[in-house]
Amino acid sequence: MENFTFYSPTYFVFGKEEENNAGKYVKRFGGTKVLLHYGGGSVVRSGLLDRVKASLSAEHIPYVELGGVKPNPRSGLVYEGIELCRKEKVDFVLAIGGGSTIDSSKAIAAGTVYSGDFWDFYQGKLVEEALPIGIILTISAAGSEGSADSVITNENGMYKRGATGEALRPTFSILNPALTQTLPPFQTACGITDIMAHLFERYFTNTQEVEVTDRMIEGLLLTMIHEGPRVIEDPNNYEARANIMWAGMMGHNNSCGVGRIQDWASHDIEHELSALYDCAHGAGLAVVFPAWMTYVYKHDVMRFAKLAVRVWGCQMDFANPERTALEGISALRRFWKSLGMPSNFAELGAKEEDIPQMAHTACYGDGRTGTLGNFVKLHEEDVANIYRLMV
Amino acid sequence: MENFTFYSPTYFVFGKEEENNAGKYVKRFGGTKVLLHYGGGSVVRSGLLDRVKASLSAEHIPYVELGGVKPNPRSGLVYEGIELCRKEKVDFVLAIGGGSTIDSSKAIAAGTVYSGDFWDFYQGKLVEEALPIGIILTISAAGSEGSADSVITNENGMYKRGATGEALRPTFSILNPALTQTLPPFQTACGITDIMAHLFERYFTNTQEVEVTDRMIEGLLLTMIHEGPRVIEDPNNYEARANIMWAGMMGHNNSCGVGRIQDWASHDIEHELSALYDCAHGAGLAVVFPAWMTYVYKHDVMRFAKLAVRVWGCQMDFANPERTALEGISALRRFWKSLGMPSNFAELGAKEEDIPQMAHTACYGDGRTGTLGNFVKLHEEDVANIYRLMV
Repeated sequence: MENFTFYSPTYFVFGKEEENNAGKYVKRFGGTKVLLHYGGGSVVRSGLLDRVKASLSAEHIPYVELGGVKPNPRSGLVYEGIELCRKEKVDFVLAIGGGSTIDSSKAIAAGTVYSGDFWDFYQGKLVEEALPIGIILTISAAGSEGSADSVITNENGMYKRGATGEALRPTFSILNPALTQTLPPFQTACGITDIMAHLFERYFTNTQEVEVTDRMIEGLLLTMIHEGPRVIEDPNNYEARANIMWAGMMGHNNSCGVGRIQDWASHDIEHELSALYDCAHGAGLAVVFPAWMTYVYKHDVMRFAKLAVRVWGCQMDFANPERTALEGISALRRFWKSLGMPSNFAELGAKEEDIPQMAHTACYGDGRTGTLGNFVKLHEEDVANIYRLMV
Repeated sequence: MENFTFYSPTYFVFGKEEENNAGKYVKRFGGTKVLLHYGGGSVVRSGLLDRVKASLSAEHIPYVELGGVKPNPRSGLVYEGIELCRKEKVDFVLAIGGGSTIDSSKAIAAGTVYSGDFWDFYQGKLVEEALPIGIILTISAAGSEGSADSVITNENGMYKRGATGEALRPTFSILNPALTQTLPPFQTACGITDIMAHLFERYFTNTQEVEVTDRMIEGLLLTMIHEGPRVIEDPNNYEARANIMWAGMMGHNNSCGVGRIQDWASHDIEHELSALYDCAHGAGLAVVFPAWMTYVYKHDVMRFAKLAVRVWGCQMDFANPERTALEGISALRRFWKSLGMPSNFAELGAKEEDIPQMAHTACYGDGRTGTLGNFVKLHEEDVANIYRLMV
C-alpha cells in the first residue's frame, strides 16, 4: 500500500425531505449570500427550486440565481458565474442538480477567489481555495457530492478536463433518494454506469497488497449489481435508490481508493466522446470500459479473474484463468446492456473517422503529455486501437 | 434505510514515518499549547514519544505531559488531565497510543471545556464541544482514531460507559502501520477481534434494505479474515498491518453503519467483564460474541446465513438455513481461536458466580433502563443466560 492522506470533511444529510433544510445548513456553514446554481428543467418543474428558495428565505439568506447548466458543463457559464459571484459578493455556492451542476459550481467557487483564469485548475493547478459549496443532489452518478474533483468542458477547443483539490469538497451535501425517482430510466442507468466506472478506475491498479480497498470496491460493485436492475424495473423503489445513492458517494469520495495508484484512462478516453458528440458521460463509459478491459486484461489476468469471480460470480477456471477474466468482461457487457446502455459507436452517435483526432486530442490536447492511464500506460496508437474496439 | 447524517472531518495521514510530522499537523489545526497524553511502556521505550516531542519543538509548540493511561482507561486520570489542561491553558490534546489513550484524551478534551462533571457525557449527554484532538495511533483496534465515541471506566462503581458527539472526532489522525509491528501477538489479535466486533455490532440490524452497508461490512470482514492470520504469523508484515489499519478505521468511522439501527449489546455485555476483571476488551469480545450469536440467531436466521455464506464461505443449506447460520458462528469461533483468543470464562479469568451481578449492572447500573441491544432487546435474564453460554 502507498502512503496517503484522506480528508472528507463534508457533512452528509441523507434522507427524505432533507432539501427543505438547505437554508439551515447554509447558515450553519457560514453562508450569508448564496449563488443558487442549477440546470433547469425538472429542478424548476418539480418545485424543488422553489422549496430550496423558501428554505433560504426562512433563514433570511439572500441569493442570486444562475440556471442553465447543461450536461458536460461548459466554461462559458463558469465565467458568467464567477462574474456574478464577484459582482454580488456571494460567499456560498449552492448547487441543485447532478454532477454537471456540481462540477460547474465547484469551478465557479474556485474561480471566484482566484486572480487568474479558472481554467488553470483544469490544466493541473491544485485548487487550494474556493468559496464554500453546498449540494442538493438530484442524480446518483458522478459522486461529485463527496469528491474533491470537478470536470468542465472548455468551449475553446472542446477540451473536457478535470480539476482537483481539497477545497472542492462540499461543506455539506443533501442526499434525498426520492429526488432521483423522477429520472428517466436512461439517466438512471447512466448514473449506475458512472458509479461502477469510478470503482473500476480504482480497482485496476499495479499497487500490490491493497486487499482492504479491493474488498470495499467489490462490495460497492456487488451493491450496484443487486440494486441497479431493481431501480430500472421500478423507478419508484426508494430503497434501491437509497443504496445506490450511498454507494455512489462512497465509490468516489476515495475512501475505497486510498493507498493505490488509480488508472483513469477510460475516463479520459470517454471525455473525448462526450466532448465531441455531447453524449451522456455514463453512456460513453458503457462503451469505453469493456473495450479498454479487452485491450489491457493480459497485463494482469489474475486481477481480472478476481473481479470476475468475486463480483460477477464466475467460476474460476484454474487451468485457464484467462477464460475467467474474459467471462467477467462479458458479464459486464451483458449487465450494462440489460440496463439499456449502448455498447458501440453507432449507438452513441460516434463516428469511426473521428478516431485519429480523438486519440490525438486525448493524448496531446491542451497540455497532455502523450500517455493516458497508469494500469497500462496507453499511447496514441493504443487509444486509437481501443476506440476501434468500440466500432 | 433510515435517514441519517454522516460527518467525518478527520484528516487522515497514513504511512511510514508520518508521526514525525505531528507538530506540523498540530500547527495546521490551530494548536498552540498541547497536552501529550499516552500510556507509557512501549511509547516511551521505542523512542516514539521523543520523536513526537521533537516534532512539536521543531514547530515551537509548547506541551505538557500526562502519561499513565491504562487499558480500560479510568476516570481518575481524566479528572487529572482536565485539571492540568485548565491550569496550563492547553488548547490541543495529542494522544499517542491506542483506543484507551485516545478515549482518555477525548474525555479530557470534552471535560476541559465543560463546566459540569465530564461523566455526564458518559451517562448520555451529547458532546457538543471539546478541545481539538490529534492522534498518533499505535494499535489497530478501537477505531477511536476516526470515531465520534469514547469509552471510560468510572472508578466509582467500576461502570464502563460510552460517550458520543461529533466534537469527539479527531482533527487529525496519523496512522503508521509500522508503529504496530512491535505489538505482542496477543494484543494484535485482540485488536483484530475488536475491529470485527465493531462490524458485527453494525451488521446485526432489523433495518431492511441496507445492501450497501451490508456489502461494505462484509468486505471489511473478509479483509480481516485474509490479513489477520498473516500478521499473527509474521508480526513484521507491514502490508497486512496496513490493510488491517485502514479496515479498523473504516469499520468504526460509521460510513458502513449509516442508515441502520445498530445493536451494541455485546459491547455492553463485554464492558462488565473488562470492568470487573480488567481483561483486554478484544479478548472479552471474543468470548461474548459467539455466545450472543448463539442466543439470538433464531431472531433472523437468514441474516446469519447470509453472513456465513458471504463472509465465511459456507455452503448455503437451502433445505435448512439454520444449519448454515450455525456453521457461520462455528467458523467465527474457530477463527478467533486460531488467532489465540480465549473462548470461555475460565480463559478470561471470569467467574460464574459473578454472573447475576454483571447481568444486573449491565442492565440497570448507572442510569441504564433495563434492556440492552436493538437486534434483540435483551433483559437481565437474557444477559445472564448469555454469560452462562460462556462458562
